[in-house]
Amino acid sequence: MTDPLPQGAIIGILGGGQLGRMLSAAASRLGFRCHIYEPFAAPAGDVAHSLTTAPYEDEAALRAFAASVDVITYEFENVPTSALDLLESLRPIRPNRRALAVSQDRISEKTFLNDLGLATAPWRAVNSEADLAAAVTALGLPAILKTTRLGYDGKGQVKLTSAADIPAAWRAMADAPSVLEGFVSFDREVSVIAARGLDGSVSAYDPGENVHREGILRTTTVPARLSPGQRSDAVLLTARVLTALDYVGVMGVELFVTPQGLLVNEIAPRVHNSGHWTQQGCTVDQFEQHIRAVAGLPLGDGSRYADVVMENLIGEDVARVPELLRARDTAVHLYGKGAPRPGRKMGHVNRVNRG
Amino acid sequence: MTDPLPQGAIIGILGGGQLGRMLSAAASRLGFRCHIYEPFAAPAGDVAHSLTTAPYEDEAALRAFAASVDVITYEFENVPTSALDLLESLRPIRPNRRALAVSQDRISEKTFLNDLGLATAPWRAVNSEADLAAAVTALGLPAILKTTRLGYDGKGQVKLTSAADIPAAWRAMADAPSVLEGFVSFDREVSVIAARGLDGSVSAYDPGENVHREGILRTTTVPARLSPGQRSDAVLLTARVLTALDYVGVMGVELFVTPQGLLVNEIAPRVHNSGHWTQQGCTVDQFEQHIRAVAGLPLGDGSRYADVVMENLIGEDVARVPELLRARDTAVHLYGKGAPRPGRKMGHVNRVNRG
Repeated sequence: MTDPLPQGAIIGILGGGQLGRMLSAAASRLGFRCHIYEPFAAPAGDVAHSLTTAPYEDEAALRAFAASVDVITYEFENVPTSALDLLESLRPIRPNRRALAVSQDRISEKTFLNDLGLATAPWRAVNSEADLAAAVTALGLPAILKTTRLGYDGKGQVKLTSAADIPAAWRAMADAPSVLEGFVSFDREVSVIAARGLDGSVSAYDPGENVHREGILRTTTVPARLSPGQRSDAVLLTARVLTALDYVGVMGVELFVTPQGLLVNEIAPRVHNSGHWTQQGCTVDQFEQHIRAVAGLPLGDGSRYADVVMENLIGEDVARVPELLRARDTAVHLYGKGAPRPGRKMGHVNRVNRG
Repeated sequence: MTDPLPQGAIIGILGGGQLGRMLSAAASRLGFRCHIYEPFAAPAGDVAHSLTTAPYEDEAALRAFAASVDVITYEFENVPTSALDLLESLRPIRPNRRALAVSQDRISEKTFLNDLGLATAPWRAVNSEADLAAAVTALGLPAILKTTRLGYDGKGQVKLTSAADIPAAWRAMADAPSVLEGFVSFDREVSVIAARGLDGSVSAYDPGENVHREGILRTTTVPARLSPGQRSDAVLLTARVLTALDYVGVMGVELFVTPQGLLVNEIAPRVHNSGHWTQQGCTVDQFEQHIRAVAGLPLGDGSRYADVVMENLIGEDVARVPELLRARDTAVHLYGKGAPRPGRKMGHVNRVNRG
């Protein structure tokens, strides 16, 4: 299927969080409908044509979902392989399975990136406490031990600062295959949000500069403080990743800016929190760009027309919403979630500086 | 009920066309859910939490709808009085009934405006062919005969250019109460989209200049060609209308710019086609501004930051969509309707000029 989807076509989205919610709203702007598949409570279902609430192990629900849609995409990359195998036999999945497989596993991801000639932090696979001790010897300390799968927002990670941390760090992994990443001394962290269309064309947004706290993204600022050469390197390496994966859709690529050049931290095969600024900084934002790609439409104008600071509203940050709603040049985005909890992403705000 | 609606609250929308669709998407950005009530096919249902498909005469459906929502608004002003009476007894309706009553009937509307000291085209009520003949004598020709209710997009209107047109014109009204409007020689037509919050604050968007063809809006251009005095007059008279009606929500006020000053053509108690440019020209667009007002939130920053030309995509205009999707500084909005028909609004496009 390579023709553009017609008006009224249905895009299936695996995952029903805020990313799915914003994808569905963007799809509506282009005349499409969305069907959300989500095992748990789903903010995206509030703004979708239909919602399936079922586990990823429910074969009948997956079959019915696939039968009701024209194409499948995802806002959540940790969908079980068995579900993807079934869905892929029934409908096209965009971005493709390879992008998912690569990004679902930190070792596959780093191997893919290194094979492409892209630098990452030094790393070693760890499958036992003895492996961990050897990896610590090889990479030095401090270092970070992470499960190879399912970690996000700082979960499934332990920082080691001395050899005495080794036993507890390994216990924290609960025997899951893991990877030790050597410490990288970086000046800043940036990300490139880029899209690749079904026709192979690539469009990258201007890189954003990210600040994390406790493993959670707090702010993204555009433009990032990068030299012209760094900016160009960041965009070009992202395009290489997309093309190597024959990728269709939007990807987020997180990079460390170091004195030795750019290192790839991780890739996310979906719209990305650090791309939310595009809602107020570009004519076509990352959500619409993803839907265009998945639907086989041409990519749109993603050039940046304003400086933006995106700030996540996490937990009790929502108490500031009444004041933010009144602020000039400030767009507030709320996800319709229930009570705020520490670490829970409740919304975000884009502050625009038109200079 | 004057407290702001909480996250996850449900806003009921009467009418399920493209205006409801864009309202629902805007509501999702603020963390609200929408329930659409529409007797016919409803593009808005594709992007809403729930959809009731039932006639406005179905009392049980209306009661269930009201019971499921926190507040009721509308994107379509010709909802039958009986339905509104029932709904109003169950939930707040914003904007209020008076705004609807005034705008549903051209004679009520003109009387309200004239009583407020605002100029309109000269007019006479017409309830018979004899009335029409007398009105033609009083106002001269050319003139336009319109039904007092239910006309839109040029429907229910006949232009008279000679006395010989009187019998056919009256027959075309099918005995419906009508109004003859005298011909106005105007330089241009502009509209002001403005919002009034639950706290009484008013925020007006910069006036747009409208071009109609065959009674259907084709383009809105901002800024409109107005002198500073005309711009200020347009905004101030709009604020007077909103305040006089104790209005809550967004209203569109269409004005004729004449050598003698501004005449009010009509008021629409809802988001308005000529306000679609705000999606690409303002931080908070008319859809979000309406939802903010209806939900009791503070109005947002509606200042214009770019020049925009909004063009409706009508009927076969959609054939240009592939090219428009590729254009720079161009945002395409499609409504997900089926086959294009002559005169059917299929979408719109906002072309931005950032100067």
